[in-house]
Amino acid sequence: MGYREQTIEGRNAVIEAYRSGKAIDKIYIQDGCQDGPVMTIKREAKKHDTLVKYVTRERLDQMSETGRHQGVIAVAGAYEYAQLEDILAAARAKDEPLFLFLLDNIEDPHNLGAIIRTANLAGAHGVIIPKNRAAGLTATVARTSAGALNYTPVARVTNLSKTIEELKKEGVWFVCADMGGTQMYELDLQGPIGLVIGNEGEGVSRLVREKCDMIASIPMKGNIDSLNASVAAGVLAYEIVRQRLQ
Amino acid sequence: MGYREQTIEGRNAVIEAYRSGKAIDKIYIQDGCQDGPVMTIKREAKKHDTLVKYVTRERLDQMSETGRHQGVIAVAGAYEYAQLEDILAAARAKDEPLFLFLLDNIEDPHNLGAIIRTANLAGAHGVIIPKNRAAGLTATVARTSAGALNYTPVARVTNLSKTIEELKKEGVWFVCADMGGTQMYELDLQGPIGLVIGNEGEGVSRLVREKCDMIASIPMKGNIDSLNASVAAGVLAYEIVRQRLQ
Repeated sequence: MGYREQTIEGRNAVIEAYRSGKAIDKIYIQDGCQDGPVMTIKREAKKHDTLVKYVTRERLDQMSETGRHQGVIAVAGAYEYAQLEDILAAARAKDEPLFLFLLDNIEDPHNLGAIIRTANLAGAHGVIIPKNRAAGLTATVARTSAGALNYTPVARVTNLSKTIEELKKEGVWFVCADMGGTQMYELDLQGPIGLVIGNEGEGVSRLVREKCDMIASIPMKGNIDSLNASVAAGVLAYEIVRQRLQ
Repeated sequence: MGYREQTIEGRNAVIEAYRSGKAIDKIYIQDGCQDGPVMTIKREAKKHDTLVKYVTRERLDQMSETGRHQGVIAVAGAYEYAQLEDILAAARAKDEPLFLFLLDNIEDPHNLGAIIRTANLAGAHGVIIPKNRAAGLTATVARTSAGALNYTPVARVTNLSKTIEELKKEGVWFVCADMGGTQMYELDLQGPIGLVIGNEGEGVSRLVREKCDMIASIPMKGNIDSLNASVAAGVLAYEIVRQRLQ
């Protein structure tokens, strides 16, 4: 997978990329640039929650492959995002109880890739991530997913707790991993389910946690606080798999 | 955790580090250096299975923090390794059935750190890694383990399959994850156990696989081949935890 295919250099190219709906993860803008096209790019970046980094011209020169960056280099997503509706339709078509992963701000692309890989093998129908802050589908994610990104659809939503509310109306139950919950073996995880995985450092956010029907706790015997986010996702996902196999 | 504390520069300092038993993970030696002290260092490196990289003088100059590398920079382990005997004694003292992780050449320090973290929380008594090729206890591993390295001992052995043979005499059973095994839920994993995790790309090596009493398979519903190594370790470890809790 070439990194080259994913950088977009120059003002018009970046504006065009936004207009065509391309998923842009990050933009590097030269410090102090304030002219019209750059202001347009900043507005688009804000609208699409793109991460903007202000760097020196020398830095852009180093990054540039074309030598014609005009003060702007964008890094575009390696893969296209899916629509949530398509994920639901695919599960219905398979006549399986829905199984979704919802990632409440996973920031490390290695974790995101590993979780998409797990979602694929655990038989989940899709992965939902929030637009803001969280890691997007970059080349690192694609590589770490070991190919799973080609099969398991990933949808981006603006507001995770709103999405949970909407899906609840369709009969989906939500479980998140958090301390002080019920031991996961004692929960009934066999129906249509959304598995919510929290941020690496902060866990599940309060708003999302409040929307969950069940709080699952993974038994912890050791001296430290929590499992790595992608390991916790794997352990919980496979408890769902185990219960469904019975 | 400072990187500075872990590089050792200069011939005598490196020879001294070996003599004092410090765990050295990697040595950079200037291309073409053949004098007495450097030959001594190469012998020590061979004896201790240290990875040796030959680099240019310019590269060493860049890496050097003291400016006095004399053609040799060593990277020492962030943590001390434990002795296998001490791990066994600690399990006996706790009066628990032995639970070990054996890593058959995990190469990615992030995976190694995440696995040590899982071992701690799953209540394992220790982690065994081979001396050769595999990732050692570097600063990255310590950081990724989220503190678990302070609690869960890690021992290095020369030959993993020999260690398995010796532990079998003490009544330990060994299970590895591999395709074509028995579904993990159907295995009895409640007794004294060693969980063997294979290399990221190649899985469990043939020699080690042949020594295992059980081959466990994790149910796979998806389109790709295998879980991330640290996720697979987590899923299997928690199947052991589940069975032991019953």
